[in-house]
Amino acid sequence: VKDRPRKSTFPMLPFAEAAELVFQCSAPRQVCTIQLDKALGLVLAETVTASEPLPPFPASIKDGYAVIHSDGAGEFPVVGAVTAGLNQDLKLEPGNVIRITTGAPIPPGADAVVQVEDTDLLEASPDGKEEKKIRILKAATKGQDIRSPGSDIAKDEVVLEKGTKLGPAEIGLLASVDRTEVRVYRRVSVALMSTGDEVVEPGQPLKFGQIRDSNRAMLRSALMLQHNCDVVDLGITGDDPDKLRTTLKEGLKHDILITSGGVSMGEKDMLKPLITELGGTIHFGRVFLKPGKPTTCASVPRQDLPDTLVLALPGNPVSCFVTFELFVAPAIRHMCGLQGKTQTIKARLADKVFLDPRPEFQRVTLNWSTEDGVPTALSTGFQRSSRLLSARSANALLRLPPRSDSLTELAKGALVDAIPLWAN
Amino acid sequence: VKDRPRKSTFPMLPFAEAAELVFQCSAPRQVCTIQLDKALGLVLAETVTASEPLPPFPASIKDGYAVIHSDGAGEFPVVGAVTAGLNQDLKLEPGNVIRITTGAPIPPGADAVVQVEDTDLLEASPDGKEEKKIRILKAATKGQDIRSPGSDIAKDEVVLEKGTKLGPAEIGLLASVDRTEVRVYRRVSVALMSTGDEVVEPGQPLKFGQIRDSNRAMLRSALMLQHNCDVVDLGITGDDPDKLRTTLKEGLKHDILITSGGVSMGEKDMLKPLITELGGTIHFGRVFLKPGKPTTCASVPRQDLPDTLVLALPGNPVSCFVTFELFVAPAIRHMCGLQGKTQTIKARLADKVFLDPRPEFQRVTLNWSTEDGVPTALSTGFQRSSRLLSARSANALLRLPPRSDSLTELAKGALVDAIPLWAN
Ligand SMILES: [Mg+2]
Ligand SMILES: [Mg+2]
Repeated sequence: VKDRPRKSTFPMLPFAEAAELVFQCSAPRQVCTIQLDKALGLVLAETVTASEPLPPFPASIKDGYAVIHSDGAGEFPVVGAVTAGLNQDLKLEPGNVIRITTGAPIPPGADAVVQVEDTDLLEASPDGKEEKKIRILKAATKGQDIRSPGSDIAKDEVVLEKGTKLGPAEIGLLASVDRTEVRVYRRVSVALMSTGDEVVEPGQPLKFGQIRDSNRAMLRSALMLQHNCDVVDLGITGDDPDKLRTTLKEGLKHDILITSGGVSMGEKDMLKPLITELGGTIHFGRVFLKPGKPTTCASVPRQDLPDTLVLALPGNPVSCFVTFELFVAPAIRHMCGLQGKTQTIKARLADKVFLDPRPEFQRVTLNWSTEDGVPTALSTGFQRSSRLLSARSANALLRLPPRSDSLTELAKGALVDAIPLWAN
Repeated sequence: VKDRPRKSTFPMLPFAEAAELVFQCSAPRQVCTIQLDKALGLVLAETVTASEPLPPFPASIKDGYAVIHSDGAGEFPVVGAVTAGLNQDLKLEPGNVIRITTGAPIPPGADAVVQVEDTDLLEASPDGKEEKKIRILKAATKGQDIRSPGSDIAKDEVVLEKGTKLGPAEIGLLASVDRTEVRVYRRVSVALMSTGDEVVEPGQPLKFGQIRDSNRAMLRSALMLQHNCDVVDLGITGDDPDKLRTTLKEGLKHDILITSGGVSMGEKDMLKPLITELGGTIHFGRVFLKPGKPTTCASVPRQDLPDTLVLALPGNPVSCFVTFELFVAPAIRHMCGLQGKTQTIKARLADKVFLDPRPEFQRVTLNWSTEDGVPTALSTGFQRSSRLLSARSANALLRLPPRSDSLTELAKGALVDAIPLWAN
């Protein structure tokens, strides 16, 4: 104990520098081929083009009649019908019309469609089952209500670029061009553990001096709901170095190992030396940031796989919540194959804010009921790093600049950067 | 065929009226008790209060020394140590200090904490294992670096209100107040089917006149990724009435049945009569809306369960995509127990837009790289309802007013309402 440093031996990194180091350690994972119904939420590792035109044939946009536009308006015999999906071998001669349904192929000879609403029925077959003669009320123009082949997607057109995240529309597009498998960056695997002798699983009896572990439940939720990761929960390790070492070794088998606690100045804060002992390189051990100052980042080599990124987050639940968004989320995005950085938006302060000497990320609720289209940022209340209630119903992190001699507060109504907390 | 109506027999409902009818048919589902680790994404059906204060004891915010603030600065013997999570029975007498770690309980007698950075070590034990004497460089103030009991969460404080959606922070909060089970509105179950003889599953051979089914893959993705539903996929029914009827009956066992196709003016568009035959009430069969005019809504009674809501969406993939967001998503939100309506934001047109006679929902990509904080809405290109490429990378639906004599277009830069496509 007496030999512990009385000041941290780690330099205090500017946030941007720390974020850049994390980015460098989170290169995209391997590419694999996956079934389309497993690809949702992953990122394309190939550029997908259309092998066939869509529609593959000239198709009717309406329910009505295939016509020859130059025949104009008037009375016409109905010489047959084509319905979508049934292969009929009909050809349209001048002076006739063919009944057609939405999506059905235009019969050869026809060059326009007249919708049923613009016609009258004049004569039916004796059994009442078929239309024999109709009146077209309004002459058609050439090509009217016909989708030409390839007009939705041309053959060989690029449908999705490499690097696109596969959401519902993109999965639909892949289905529409007959892709049942696709090349993607593989899912990221993340291990999770909490340190600390004082930390107890919910549902277990609480002894004097102990608190509940909220970090793992929170982080597991974020990883599953917003980040589409494979999550391995390694539980609570306490502060016993042997237990810590064993659990760290297990966690280092994954792409990312997230720990919480154990990175302060206490004699039980042994994560940094243990990571070094296990062959890791500490990239930073302190960040000029509020909350989240003790956030620690390391990488540990793996056999035949990219290095494991270790993000050792502070134990206070709000610090843990904020540093997850600032460091872990961008690392996952990068490993998943996404190219852009995290989206930042702007919001207007609902109240005056006093600045901290450190750049601060405050939890706010954005409200869009404004005239000018800029959301208002309402504080979630007392922002102490142990008060998880400040993350309740928050939908953004407000990025406040550090205090300086010339700037000590931001006025109500000031325009401030915000990081949305919805998945993006 | 000849007896089919030549004009739709369903009145064309204004969009707001149609949306309100869907809302009326989507009351919150039953309440159930669920394990915390299964509750992510669901909505609370109880108001949760804290049964214990947090922290449960006065806790140190720093690694350092528990002191009596009136003792001031100077030299002090270190008479013991308390570390987080280990139950030590120490009492602090005036003139002494006790070593303490972050999160550990303040020993009786102490009323402040001095962080280790503000001390010097003067003397260690002969074996070098313990600190014997330190110097405090700066006198502490009363209560310094102590979190008082209940200062993060007071006993009986409301932690989460009924109606709150459980995201990562909320799951963490529930864990922190020792909840292992929670009352929520149960998960919504949704059945899915595509109609149409022309529709073929991706990977199957395509005959002349046929196209791929993209709607089911797209809708299934949206239901899973953004709406946390139990999804039952009933496949492609074709247009055979017996097959349709059998599949509809299966789908009517769920909270919502989504169909696509079969709601136009063609003779194969038999969904509406079949739903009526199965005991359903059609609430609307046409909406004054682009795309999505033929969207149909019905409800069908179930034994001992809320009515099944049937949303029969148009078959064109873009119409299907847009009407899912406009009708299905709000219905799911309501059934899940969420109280507010869908969030609308504002965006500025990147280009001039010509208005349609119907209110139109165009697909756009919002970009926040603007000076004033209002996102720019960039069109995804040709907006025809068959062109699913117009949904590619879209992150919002722009809500355009209908054309009138006095308003035929909106200028570049105009402020327009937009519905975000991220889960909210
Ligand atoms: Mg600890
Ligand atoms: Mg059809």
